[in-house]
Amino acid sequence: MTDHRHEYDQVDDFARLDVGREARQGMPEFVYAESKTPEQVGAILARMAARLGCALATRATPAHAEAARAVLAEAVYDPISRLIRVGAMPRLEGGLARVLAAGTSDLPVAEEAAGALDFLGNRVERLYDVGVAGLHRLLSHVDELADSDVLIVVAGMEGALPTLVGGLVDVPIVAVPTSVGYGASFGGLSALLGMLNSCAPGVSVVNIDNGLGAAAVAHRILRQLRKRHARF
Amino acid sequence: MTDHRHEYDQVDDFARLDVGREARQGMPEFVYAESKTPEQVGAILARMAARLGCALATRATPAHAEAARAVLAEAVYDPISRLIRVGAMPRLEGGLARVLAAGTSDLPVAEEAAGALDFLGNRVERLYDVGVAGLHRLLSHVDELADSDVLIVVAGMEGALPTLVGGLVDVPIVAVPTSVGYGASFGGLSALLGMLNSCAPGVSVVNIDNGLGAAAVAHRILRQLRKRHARF
Amino acid sequence: MTDHRHEYDQVDDFARLDVGREARQGMPEFVYAESKTPEQVGAILARMAARLGCALATRATPAHAEAARAVLAEAVYDPISRLIRVGAMPRLEGGLARVLAAGTSDLPVAEEAAGALDFLGNRVERLYDVGVAGLHRLLSHVDELADSDVLIVVAGMEGALPTLVGGLVDVPIVAVPTSVGYGASFGGLSALLGMLNSCAPGVSVVNIDNGLGAAAVAHRILRQLRKRHARF
Amino acid sequence: MTDHRHEYDQVDDFARLDVGREARQGMPEFVYAESKTPEQVGAILARMAARLGCALATRATPAHAEAARAVLAEAVYDPISRLIRVGAMPRLEGGLARVLAAGTSDLPVAEEAAGALDFLGNRVERLYDVGVAGLHRLLSHVDELADSDVLIVVAGMEGALPTLVGGLVDVPIVAVPTSVGYGASFGGLSALLGMLNSCAPGVSVVNIDNGLGAAAVAHRILRQLRKRHARF
Amino acid sequence: MTDHRHEYDQVDDFARLDVGREARQGMPEFVYAESKTPEQVGAILARMAARLGCALATRATPAHAEAARAVLAEAVYDPISRLIRVGAMPRLEGGLARVLAAGTSDLPVAEEAAGALDFLGNRVERLYDVGVAGLHRLLSHVDELADSDVLIVVAGMEGALPTLVGGLVDVPIVAVPTSVGYGASFGGLSALLGMLNSCAPGVSVVNIDNGLGAAAVAHRILRQLRKRHARF
Amino acid sequence: MTDHRHEYDQVDDFARLDVGREARQGMPEFVYAESKTPEQVGAILARMAARLGCALATRATPAHAEAARAVLAEAVYDPISRLIRVGAMPRLEGGLARVLAAGTSDLPVAEEAAGALDFLGNRVERLYDVGVAGLHRLLSHVDELADSDVLIVVAGMEGALPTLVGGLVDVPIVAVPTSVGYGASFGGLSALLGMLNSCAPGVSVVNIDNGLGAAAVAHRILRQLRKRHARF
Amino acid sequence: MTDHRHEYDQVDDFARLDVGREARQGMPEFVYAESKTPEQVGAILARMAARLGCALATRATPAHAEAARAVLAEAVYDPISRLIRVGAMPRLEGGLARVLAAGTSDLPVAEEAAGALDFLGNRVERLYDVGVAGLHRLLSHVDELADSDVLIVVAGMEGALPTLVGGLVDVPIVAVPTSVGYGASFGGLSALLGMLNSCAPGVSVVNIDNGLGAAAVAHRILRQLRKRHARF
Amino acid sequence: MTDHRHEYDQVDDFARLDVGREARQGMPEFVYAESKTPEQVGAILARMAARLGCALATRATPAHAEAARAVLAEAVYDPISRLIRVGAMPRLEGGLARVLAAGTSDLPVAEEAAGALDFLGNRVERLYDVGVAGLHRLLSHVDELADSDVLIVVAGMEGALPTLVGGLVDVPIVAVPTSVGYGASFGGLSALLGMLNSCAPGVSVVNIDNGLGAAAVAHRILRQLRKRHARF
Repeated sequence: MTDHRHEYDQVDDFARLDVGREARQGMPEFVYAESKTPEQVGAILARMAARLGCALATRATPAHAEAARAVLAEAVYDPISRLIRVGAMPRLEGGLARVLAAGTSDLPVAEEAAGALDFLGNRVERLYDVGVAGLHRLLSHVDELADSDVLIVVAGMEGALPTLVGGLVDVPIVAVPTSVGYGASFGGLSALLGMLNSCAPGVSVVNIDNGLGAAAVAHRILRQLRKRHARF
Repeated sequence: MTDHRHEYDQVDDFARLDVGREARQGMPEFVYAESKTPEQVGAILARMAARLGCALATRATPAHAEAARAVLAEAVYDPISRLIRVGAMPRLEGGLARVLAAGTSDLPVAEEAAGALDFLGNRVERLYDVGVAGLHRLLSHVDELADSDVLIVVAGMEGALPTLVGGLVDVPIVAVPTSVGYGASFGGLSALLGMLNSCAPGVSVVNIDNGLGAAAVAHRILRQLRKRHARF
Repeated sequence: MTDHRHEYDQVDDFARLDVGREARQGMPEFVYAESKTPEQVGAILARMAARLGCALATRATPAHAEAARAVLAEAVYDPISRLIRVGAMPRLEGGLARVLAAGTSDLPVAEEAAGALDFLGNRVERLYDVGVAGLHRLLSHVDELADSDVLIVVAGMEGALPTLVGGLVDVPIVAVPTSVGYGASFGGLSALLGMLNSCAPGVSVVNIDNGLGAAAVAHRILRQLRKRHARF
Repeated sequence: MTDHRHEYDQVDDFARLDVGREARQGMPEFVYAESKTPEQVGAILARMAARLGCALATRATPAHAEAARAVLAEAVYDPISRLIRVGAMPRLEGGLARVLAAGTSDLPVAEEAAGALDFLGNRVERLYDVGVAGLHRLLSHVDELADSDVLIVVAGMEGALPTLVGGLVDVPIVAVPTSVGYGASFGGLSALLGMLNSCAPGVSVVNIDNGLGAAAVAHRILRQLRKRHARF
Repeated sequence: MTDHRHEYDQVDDFARLDVGREARQGMPEFVYAESKTPEQVGAILARMAARLGCALATRATPAHAEAARAVLAEAVYDPISRLIRVGAMPRLEGGLARVLAAGTSDLPVAEEAAGALDFLGNRVERLYDVGVAGLHRLLSHVDELADSDVLIVVAGMEGALPTLVGGLVDVPIVAVPTSVGYGASFGGLSALLGMLNSCAPGVSVVNIDNGLGAAAVAHRILRQLRKRHARF
Repeated sequence: MTDHRHEYDQVDDFARLDVGREARQGMPEFVYAESKTPEQVGAILARMAARLGCALATRATPAHAEAARAVLAEAVYDPISRLIRVGAMPRLEGGLARVLAAGTSDLPVAEEAAGALDFLGNRVERLYDVGVAGLHRLLSHVDELADSDVLIVVAGMEGALPTLVGGLVDVPIVAVPTSVGYGASFGGLSALLGMLNSCAPGVSVVNIDNGLGAAAVAHRILRQLRKRHARF
Repeated sequence: MTDHRHEYDQVDDFARLDVGREARQGMPEFVYAESKTPEQVGAILARMAARLGCALATRATPAHAEAARAVLAEAVYDPISRLIRVGAMPRLEGGLARVLAAGTSDLPVAEEAAGALDFLGNRVERLYDVGVAGLHRLLSHVDELADSDVLIVVAGMEGALPTLVGGLVDVPIVAVPTSVGYGASFGGLSALLGMLNSCAPGVSVVNIDNGLGAAAVAHRILRQLRKRHARF
Repeated sequence: MTDHRHEYDQVDDFARLDVGREARQGMPEFVYAESKTPEQVGAILARMAARLGCALATRATPAHAEAARAVLAEAVYDPISRLIRVGAMPRLEGGLARVLAAGTSDLPVAEEAAGALDFLGNRVERLYDVGVAGLHRLLSHVDELADSDVLIVVAGMEGALPTLVGGLVDVPIVAVPTSVGYGASFGGLSALLGMLNSCAPGVSVVNIDNGLGAAAVAHRILRQLRKRHARF
């Protein structure tokens, strides 16, 4: 049987697909659109879709989306999450991720996480606008929180939401600080430090605004759950 | 009538008491023991007690306390708050300050605040070990919180407690970040930033570990309440 | 009697009003316009005004204002404070807040504080251009300062004004650092640190440029004063 | 059936056990020894052991251990991990956590993580001294890495190890930066930033030197795996 | 023989060429275009080319390039490296520099380094898209890496690539952190700290995005190699 | 006439006196004791005194002083300023420097400045305990302040004193931030930033706790005054 | 004789001139244009010119200049220093300031300093493009440097120039860090720290890019020199 | 022929020697004593010496040295560089490294670099006390500087020395910032930033106080020179 784990595929002369990434890391390579031209994003997505059957670009602008649709009629763009999706990975059984967001300004990051999880075949549910200033909105959802396999908790400003959730349920929490805030939030540093210093157990943290990174962690957790399930 | 607001009093050659401070600022000068020798602290406390009838030193070590008791039999030292008290200001009617602390490690700062408020003649109650990881301890005290004139909320690590309290009641909150924590708490910076970026209204912040500073703010608020009460 | 403290109201699908906030926190929810489209701001203000009888948006641009006026004829925009006001809360008896600003560049933040206090029904007076480089301007107003219930003191650069005021009078001071300055002011960090390290008693601090936050603290202080007055 | 989730137990007057924590958070409360006296640590451990059947203290010194052994003959101290263990939670079936450490200086943090996981009943294996400067040591263990349910990866200095591991296998990685290093490592900041900015997917981060925090995250992941296993 | 080491040449009134720089420092002065108008860049390049036979401008925009071509037909602009080249220094025998880049976003910096080395007469080869998340791409090139006289290694985000390379071969490594990344990469600070704290020997670091600076270091190393070769 | 500006003198094998420093820089070299052994400090002071007729060591401990007195009977140690003086430079006519200190904790730095100025032959007067929290102490000295040639203003915490003084008189001000404070004073950073961002004209700043550095600046100003006086 | 030291003059409703500033601080108030509209700058300059006979605005854009010229025909704008000058203060006898700049990118800041000094009536000479990478350019001017009363030394990047100059001559040096640089220059922080930590005596520092602030310090030094000259 | 590049050797149970490091990286593994007990350092040195014929420990205390000498009579300790040497690598022909230090406080770091280079078999010369405040000391050595193959330049405070040297000669410069300084030197950050922002070409930087790291870079440069020499 061929080992595809270290195979690559050259796209024109500006990119080399890491074709083996899915076999190795459990997840295909995505296109980070922010540092690429619309034409480059279109070309890489097309090659990926041809090779893998589906493709995803993150941090895409409408211009990226337009270039993608010019070469891939099935490309779908969502302006909030800034994702361009071409198809999706096969639906996976077992496991549920929930994405929480503290405020409406945190939605782009939360939707990037939720959209990527969905694209990867996972079941994902959203719970938004449950920030700590209106505590009872959150408390009314404790049972749903407890009935999840992994929680992605997105918050800016002081970033207290993951701490609260971590004190209420026993589910692993991936905390995502956002750059929402002003003044001494210092571009998300305040929320990042708050989450790293959480006094609640079970909270780990990804980079500021890194919805995709949180999705990758949650996907790996759900993936282990399915792998082990087969083995138990 | 003499205006004492700008009067000073020389203690040996190492200190000059700002005798007018109480008239001007509503509160006498205190002795910050940390940068003084035991003998200096003893001498200044003695002069203050003679001049004002009472005196308070903060951040005092047992050595400071011993030197104080050598010259002032009535000096009382509390090793948790690190306060040396000589007498107290007259009891004041009206107004209640509550001091909250998230964890037991925050007690020295909380006690510095509570002790200073008490020394200044205010009514003060304590509510400790109500950190956000055990949310229901806090929620069971909401009515007490609401029935206060000012809340001093002391917390380290991610500093989320003032935000939670600020979302539950309408009382002014003086938040005190502590240097409790390690790693990315950076000596209290994490809690400080969390409190400054609080998404709850009504929260203002003093310096890290500054229990005395919080007491001064709370004392001024209670003082206005009493002054205006007389005037209404 | 119905407890409105934990009631919410959905606005289209992009916002959920925390209707119980006033009962709980003594102040209705405001609209932070900066992260919303003009249409969203207009819609939320309209819903708030219908539900609460008045509404306020902060950090609004002229475009936000235009969209608000399109749906609410009585919406009033002030380009300095960047507030959109729709009506106001009932006038409240008793208590006076004074807002000080060090320089003309600090006016937007000071006016946000003053405008929000006024909207909330409080009596507020302004004292501007009293920075420490022209000390006698400030000293000529000491009696007015002393005759206030709470002082909001707004300053950028080195942020020394709250310290000066705190040394002159016994009123609680809410200090607001502004991002005014350049170079090593690091976006207001210099003023923020200066205020947190104030050597004067009675000073607490809110986030950089957070005029609204200072108003919320002052409003809570004045509110306690009125509540207790009734009770004494 | 009684709900123990919000039950507390007072220990003398200096601590209140959060007895419901295990029911709520899937893990009992631990004793953070660093900020407590030897006597306090001994007393709390004794009460915990009496109440829960086992107990764990972290960041303990030999003096803490001695005080613990004076009241609890079965207390066991490990000077590397600085853990005091009294008994252990019941062994749990299913799931394997592996703890990696880059260098010998990272062992105290790695052992804190491994010891806590073991105490909580999990199966845990260690893989130490696999830093990136000797890459082939790591590469010779790829199959073991892939055959784990969660990886805790501990590293100081530039903190590159989690990135490398994240590129090789599809298992969720909890990265722990350590304060090992000097100069521009700034007490672990360098490793922390390196891990947060990891270009590999599936990496989330806990606070500097927080071995216990990583264990809590891994424990929650293993716990979900077991819970869902029962349900599938 | 005249000593040109301290000779200067005035260009209009806005610049003074340090004509002796090549004799003194082994490399002529370059034009840093970023802070100059197109016309100034054109005029200085023309004067340099007239005086030295060749010239190089860095960080040039298309507008700079157009102005340069208006006065110097032979000026060549490369939009990726942002270099304007007029001729080149004589080809030099002996010595090979290799430039590695972790990802496609790092290309502008890598190309600035490679282009400047080439302009200075050195033999330079490129090896791009060999980031640590796809480790086997890098490992398949170890022999080429070892067969170089100096390696310039360009990476953003966590900046782990120089550490990996430094552990694999015995060649001096000039590490260049790039500002590629977001959130807690803090404009390249994360990669910079990662490289400074490298646990691999033989790595030194230049400023963030400073491809030219790395080229200057590599050029000096190659130059010594040629000088000493003549002498041995 | 011999040019002594670039002459050096070897002391054993651990130091080389820059004998020409006074001719070149208007001030002899001083001994920074902090990083030297008592014996080294004694030996260098002895050599300096022999060569220049006088000598000064800064940041000296009692142990340094004892070693100095063992070889130089006339060495005088002051424990507050931590200076060891051996003789002094000739008294200079004309010019007066005044050193201000905000609080008693700032005295070591202020005394280092005052002592060094005195050693260099300048007339210096002290004005201590004039911090901004007791504004009238400062205001009562405005005429003295105005009647100085240069002011050294020493303050910690928020560092507001130089700004105040700069607004009152037209004398050049050398501001010295001290590391006095705690929490968010971050070792003097708060005072440093406050002084750099001073809104008053005529303020320049030296390093934190650098009393000697301020004395050197003031000495150069007084020196110019005397030089020019001769020339006018 | 009237004391004008604390007199003010209202300009429309947006500014209040501190008319007494010259009497008090030795220098009139300037207009900081950056935070004002063209019309406001024009109006304040007109009022100042009417009241004081001359006026200066800093950080002015061409739009500010146009508005100024519309109301004041004699307003002169210099696009490099960004100063708008209306007349000038009377020429002053005695004293020479020299302004040094390390590179051409530092000219705007150097010219702001030189232009302001000239406006204030001082004699000022310029010495530009004398950065440390071409050391002999600087060394060839040592005699001129020594023959100055005060030196303003402007530099970005590593900010080493003031240290070099401070080691060569005995004149007081006002160092001005500029935000010139990239990457780890962090907007001038690198140069600022370099200057504050200068190992040469006689260097004090003003804020990043603060040419005007340096001019104010130099003007005060020259002013003392003239005052004392009259008195000697 | 056996490939030793990936061979390891276990020392008791606390360390695993990377025996292949010399073959791979051109330099054996060293013992970083700071985080090890005296006994561990002795045991590892003994094993290394047995296996490789020589060994080196860095950052060693006298206690480490004593333990080493107890097991290895030929171990030599130098208290300034804090190196323990057991034998040395064979002398290598060709190539000269020079180590410069700005001040006497920088000697420990400079000696660590020089001692390690010497141990590795290289020819190394020292040039100390050539800081920029006494510029002519440095200038009198320019010919020696130019006649070197690589320069290690060690400096604290503002870290300007590498910039100066880089402007004078064409040799590659490895800059080492030291933590020498106080206040705003922030533990060497000031020197580090100064060196990274050097305006002179050919300067690269290692971590603060990292003398050993600089030696490794210089050793690799000299090694290439010798390798290529054989090949030319």
